[in-house]
Amino acid sequence: MALYVQKFGGTSVGTIERIQAVAKKIKSYRDEGHDVVAVVSAMSGETNRLLSLSSEISSDPSPRELDVLVSTGEQVTIALVSMALQELGCEAKSYTGDQIKILTDSAHTKARIKDIDVNNIQEDLKKGRIVVVAGFQGVDAQGNTTTLGRGGSDTSAVAVAAALKADECQIYTDVDGVYTTDPRVVEKAKKLDQITFEEMLEMASLGSKVLQIRSVEFAGKYHVPLRVLSSFVEGDGTLITFEGDQKMEQPVISGIAFNRDEAKLTLVGVPDIPGAASRILGPVSAANIEVDMIVQNVAEDKTTDFTFTVHRNDYKRVIQVLESVAEDLGAQTVTGDNSIAKVSIVGVGMRSHAGVASKMFDCLAAENINILMISTSEIKISVVIEEKYLELAVRALHTAFDLDAADIAAE
Amino acid sequence: MALYVQKFGGTSVGTIERIQAVAKKIKSYRDEGHDVVAVVSAMSGETNRLLSLSSEISSDPSPRELDVLVSTGEQVTIALVSMALQELGCEAKSYTGDQIKILTDSAHTKARIKDIDVNNIQEDLKKGRIVVVAGFQGVDAQGNTTTLGRGGSDTSAVAVAAALKADECQIYTDVDGVYTTDPRVVEKAKKLDQITFEEMLEMASLGSKVLQIRSVEFAGKYHVPLRVLSSFVEGDGTLITFEGDQKMEQPVISGIAFNRDEAKLTLVGVPDIPGAASRILGPVSAANIEVDMIVQNVAEDKTTDFTFTVHRNDYKRVIQVLESVAEDLGAQTVTGDNSIAKVSIVGVGMRSHAGVASKMFDCLAAENINILMISTSEIKISVVIEEKYLELAVRALHTAFDLDAADIAAE
Repeated sequence: MALYVQKFGGTSVGTIERIQAVAKKIKSYRDEGHDVVAVVSAMSGETNRLLSLSSEISSDPSPRELDVLVSTGEQVTIALVSMALQELGCEAKSYTGDQIKILTDSAHTKARIKDIDVNNIQEDLKKGRIVVVAGFQGVDAQGNTTTLGRGGSDTSAVAVAAALKADECQIYTDVDGVYTTDPRVVEKAKKLDQITFEEMLEMASLGSKVLQIRSVEFAGKYHVPLRVLSSFVEGDGTLITFEGDQKMEQPVISGIAFNRDEAKLTLVGVPDIPGAASRILGPVSAANIEVDMIVQNVAEDKTTDFTFTVHRNDYKRVIQVLESVAEDLGAQTVTGDNSIAKVSIVGVGMRSHAGVASKMFDCLAAENINILMISTSEIKISVVIEEKYLELAVRALHTAFDLDAADIAAE
Repeated sequence: MALYVQKFGGTSVGTIERIQAVAKKIKSYRDEGHDVVAVVSAMSGETNRLLSLSSEISSDPSPRELDVLVSTGEQVTIALVSMALQELGCEAKSYTGDQIKILTDSAHTKARIKDIDVNNIQEDLKKGRIVVVAGFQGVDAQGNTTTLGRGGSDTSAVAVAAALKADECQIYTDVDGVYTTDPRVVEKAKKLDQITFEEMLEMASLGSKVLQIRSVEFAGKYHVPLRVLSSFVEGDGTLITFEGDQKMEQPVISGIAFNRDEAKLTLVGVPDIPGAASRILGPVSAANIEVDMIVQNVAEDKTTDFTFTVHRNDYKRVIQVLESVAEDLGAQTVTGDNSIAKVSIVGVGMRSHAGVASKMFDCLAAENINILMISTSEIKISVVIEEKYLELAVRALHTAFDLDAADIAAE
């Protein structure tokens, strides 16, 4: 008999029929003798409806009042889900973030959870009740309602699971798991039965939007087993595991992530003097532009080329910043390219397997795809290529690293 | 510099434009140096929208979860009103019933207020803030959200005003005050500048739906000066006063109330034995039928006639009950009439003025209106007449007791 925390997002509770389906799913776990705590989001569309009311009044509403407003969305859902469970004959009880209580800091609209009091939940579970908790919201030390920002319901669920030492935190969403890559790009993309936290973090930060990155970090930190699964189709989804808990035969590469949202900038002929990097990136950061990849070669001669990527929306602004930096530093020129894409292979297996990088580069070379930038981390290799080659690169790598579904299905 | 508690109902905050108008009205008091606490209802239609969501799930939803659900309606309004005030440059802060806190008993959907903690409000007022409180809702000792039942926002406002010892509790509604009688029946009906609590209670219980009777009782009990005024048109409305505070020259009669919702039943030839009344009304009450007026004459002979009125909706059921009572008691027969109306004159002045009753009866007799039942209280005389004479009776009495607006305007 296990304790499950089950999180249902906005589309999963978007209509009365879906709320009733969610109640049935929860009940099926309860019927097997498990304890269940459900964490729910606002019905899809509701948060936007509330925000549009506030935007009619003010273009810059008070964050405190914004939290009071939007937190009603989840409150409506907890009541309706509890009623639907009761209608199925289950004992159920709802809690707002304040009632639990989920203590946060006072950073309205983007609060961080500091502590969760699980006494109420535990008492209800002991009495055989299903507990239904409002995601996304909490309360600060002064009793003000706070919210955790978009996607905060995932974080709520993980935090509740951590505080309760739940056996598993299940995130129900509209996809049935984590895939080796985007199935819209690679037909043979395969659902993973499991993936490690580190891999999931790399995949999430690279644009696989299945889970909020913050909730994955949180789950990793508190060692909460996380499972992504679909509200709409049956299946075991994808379990996000800790490295030690993994199957013996882990593939070298778990997945291929990609991102079309970047642009590449190069400052050519930067004098090789101490502090040059910070004199370049300081003004960029001061302009509130976030930098992703950074590459600088060892200087030959007395100058070097300094290259980095930013979000494509910042492309024009960053060029303006760099032009004055170039003048200041005495660099030769600024070049840029906003039709690039980033492709990354992710996998904890590459730690112990030599030759992963060269296999990747060979594969791309075989397709005549030129690599513009390379950046590596312990479990990820990212390359920047011309955007037009993106789909080709992802498909070729997917096959090269044995990720295609056909191979797996033959097992 | 006074402290005002201002209550705005659902139609007063029914749209963003109206919320902005409410904010302007509040600000106009603040600009004059007054402190203001606003108590607000859900936007009109919102409570029904929420109830219809719950009714899709359950025909008999848990009262606890129903309170969690519908209390979001006022929570949305407090946030929007606070934002609208801030947009006008006012400092404003919202509170839910829980945050205040408004402590109630645990009778979900019809809770009663037990205590209000005014520390938070007082601190905010000291800082020059306008405080915006969610009406209709509270919290029980266990931290569960409760609601006070329909019309509960008036009660919230009065209770907050009492706890704060406010100078005045202003109830903004869609009428501009309390009238001598229904202006739809008597064109010359006149808005009253003031009316006593006792009179208001009699008027309210007789169907003048300006204020919830419970909030009037509450205001009377805690000696909170209450004013009814319009959100939409300027004016001083009607002040509900305590008898001692009144003007010297109070009219004998303040208003004429009426009610078409009743039916009259008579048990003819009831044996004059002890306990007969309870043997009649016991079964009626057991059938959950509420009785309004009761008249029994002193028995001549050995039998008496026992007459009472009930809501017209209960007419058929009460006849069935009475037929078996008649058999049981050995009464002769049951008669009934569901095309009657009740007309009442109300006024604290009648205490010190003889002849009010005879003036009323003379007036009706002069119009050939037959009186079917009479019932009196200290500040009210009610008669039951045939329904078809209702408008005529109300107009005649309105003139007879010098209530017509033309007379007043000439003062």
